[in-house]
Amino acid sequence: MNSRRDFLQKLGISAIALHLAPLSGWADSKNNQEDAYDGPVLRVAIMGLGSYGTRVAEAMRSCKKAKLVGVISGTPSKIKDWQSKYGIPEKNCYNYENFDNIKSNPDIDAVYVITPNGLHHDEVIRVAKAGKHVICEKPMALNAKQGQEMIDACKAANVKLLVGYRMHFEPKTLEVIRMRKAGDFGKIKFFQGLCGFTIGDPTQWRLNKQLAGGGSLMDIGIYAINGSRYMTGENPVWVTAQETKTDHEKFKEGVDETIEFQFGFPSGATASCLSTYAMNNLDRFFLNGDKGFAEMQPSTGYGPIMGRTNQGELTQPITVHQTVQMEEMSDIIFKGKQPVVPVDGYEALKDLKIIDAIYLAVKTGKKVDLSL
Amino acid sequence: MNSRRDFLQKLGISAIALHLAPLSGWADSKNNQEDAYDGPVLRVAIMGLGSYGTRVAEAMRSCKKAKLVGVISGTPSKIKDWQSKYGIPEKNCYNYENFDNIKSNPDIDAVYVITPNGLHHDEVIRVAKAGKHVICEKPMALNAKQGQEMIDACKAANVKLLVGYRMHFEPKTLEVIRMRKAGDFGKIKFFQGLCGFTIGDPTQWRLNKQLAGGGSLMDIGIYAINGSRYMTGENPVWVTAQETKTDHEKFKEGVDETIEFQFGFPSGATASCLSTYAMNNLDRFFLNGDKGFAEMQPSTGYGPIMGRTNQGELTQPITVHQTVQMEEMSDIIFKGKQPVVPVDGYEALKDLKIIDAIYLAVKTGKKVDLSL
Repeated sequence: MNSRRDFLQKLGISAIALHLAPLSGWADSKNNQEDAYDGPVLRVAIMGLGSYGTRVAEAMRSCKKAKLVGVISGTPSKIKDWQSKYGIPEKNCYNYENFDNIKSNPDIDAVYVITPNGLHHDEVIRVAKAGKHVICEKPMALNAKQGQEMIDACKAANVKLLVGYRMHFEPKTLEVIRMRKAGDFGKIKFFQGLCGFTIGDPTQWRLNKQLAGGGSLMDIGIYAINGSRYMTGENPVWVTAQETKTDHEKFKEGVDETIEFQFGFPSGATASCLSTYAMNNLDRFFLNGDKGFAEMQPSTGYGPIMGRTNQGELTQPITVHQTVQMEEMSDIIFKGKQPVVPVDGYEALKDLKIIDAIYLAVKTGKKVDLSL
Repeated sequence: MNSRRDFLQKLGISAIALHLAPLSGWADSKNNQEDAYDGPVLRVAIMGLGSYGTRVAEAMRSCKKAKLVGVISGTPSKIKDWQSKYGIPEKNCYNYENFDNIKSNPDIDAVYVITPNGLHHDEVIRVAKAGKHVICEKPMALNAKQGQEMIDACKAANVKLLVGYRMHFEPKTLEVIRMRKAGDFGKIKFFQGLCGFTIGDPTQWRLNKQLAGGGSLMDIGIYAINGSRYMTGENPVWVTAQETKTDHEKFKEGVDETIEFQFGFPSGATASCLSTYAMNNLDRFFLNGDKGFAEMQPSTGYGPIMGRTNQGELTQPITVHQTVQMEEMSDIIFKGKQPVVPVDGYEALKDLKIIDAIYLAVKTGKKVDLSL
């Protein structure tokens, strides 16, 4: 519905104008057999030039359907650096004061918001108001209330809101989902997601309550939350959770070090998950059905995903997640492609409702009922 | 303290009498180089001739330090069968009415109670009163109150009370414990125990509240409970738990199908465990420290235990658990040997206190504090 065509039509530009490259962003490499792609190219500005922004930018070098064309940053030296590295013209560079002006820039289709969690809400709404599609890193916001407001703003502005769920495009993950849907594991009984790492620099924004909105749960626990849903194919109806904190200096009030949480699903399946900033390289998924299982380790890391099922090793190709994500998001935005697992605001809102429930369960010590 | 020597001394028999075979039970195979063992042999009567009793009996065929010499059963045909299979004399056969008479049988040192959980309490106390050492299958009792009474009774009777914690003698398990103590995993952060199987026959005693005292938790979940303690080397200070029941026909009131439970330890380490009668062959331990890890799968099954650590595959020998257990228990009883992980009544009482806490946490939905 909110395809780029719709958006341009709304602006009074005929769909036929899309065929004019490079203004329209269409690839002009039709004659290169290997690179043959003659569809629209998603022209992206990245907001927030930190380490993950850099990772996305590097991954986009290999994209055919998406291209890094602009930046938004509060640090002029970073902008200069990115301009030279990625050939970004001056006119596509913005800071946090003036990026609303992106509205009048016809060479940018979408903004990828890769800033601290606590800033997403306001930034995404400003991007939407500037009439650009938004890709937002996860967690989409600090809580469900913010998330709903962001969805509403994007709807009102008739722009797409996508969230950086890179695993939704990862081949081994998709194979496990395919097998689960095909009944290869039988009735699903249990999911386990163990996600964590030992966080370093205590001054980073991820350990700042205001910017991060919490601790490990917001950053790494969300992989287990989201994974429990795409692996089982269900949404939890209840949540319980327990927090453990050993380092009160590093993990201040409201910043969780370790949270265990459990879900119950409508089918009776359950999930048991761990989110932590205090264990090394914990990255394990386990899905158990009455006829089979899948285990993935690493399950969500940036590097190669590895796994096996009751049928043997998973042999699907290793990909650069962010490259595939941006290629697919281009198709979602321009061609209305439906991904196997959604990556839109509603998908993210479900995770935010679960995050709210987990923090509530930690606070009250009680089981929290959910309806997603 | 409660060695067989002490026991015999109590009865007024000099220690020197122990050298008289076969009355004393000492092996008379000194001349066989391969079988060389000239210590005391634990002469055991098995109470309860079900499938696990049979497994123990078969395993004991390979024992040098223990020998099956008697049976207690309510089924005369089973007794006949066992007599012929294991060469058990008529005078060492008892039923549930007359087994108190075992008191006057000098050819039996210990009774191994392998009956439904709900019967352990009364039976163990009767065996103790008959002046025989007791080995009791786990769970030792239905709850901590019963467990304490059993400990008290054995203490009063000056007999040993051991519990069938076969994993405490399993070589790969012991290697992981050794590595943990040596600091090979660094500071322990997390334990995960997933234990379950799909239970068959709905009429079996394991699904009878009165006989089983519960459901999966009593039968298979106890492996995760006990495992969390020997793997981490700590006792939990809090417990949370969540029950899920999908089949109310098979799993009646008070008989749990699936329980997830979590522990917090004094160090700040946590455990996340699953006990279930509704999933196939779930048998996985994972111990995570800040410098390394151990994973075992299968971790507690009767067959070969397999596992690896950050240092590689575990290559310790595969054993018949019950054979090793009975050999070791002979040394514990006769020689006062201290196992790496205790197998006495106090060890079992800790598990029972945790079981009580898990059921309480399920019932109240609240975190239960513990002091073991």
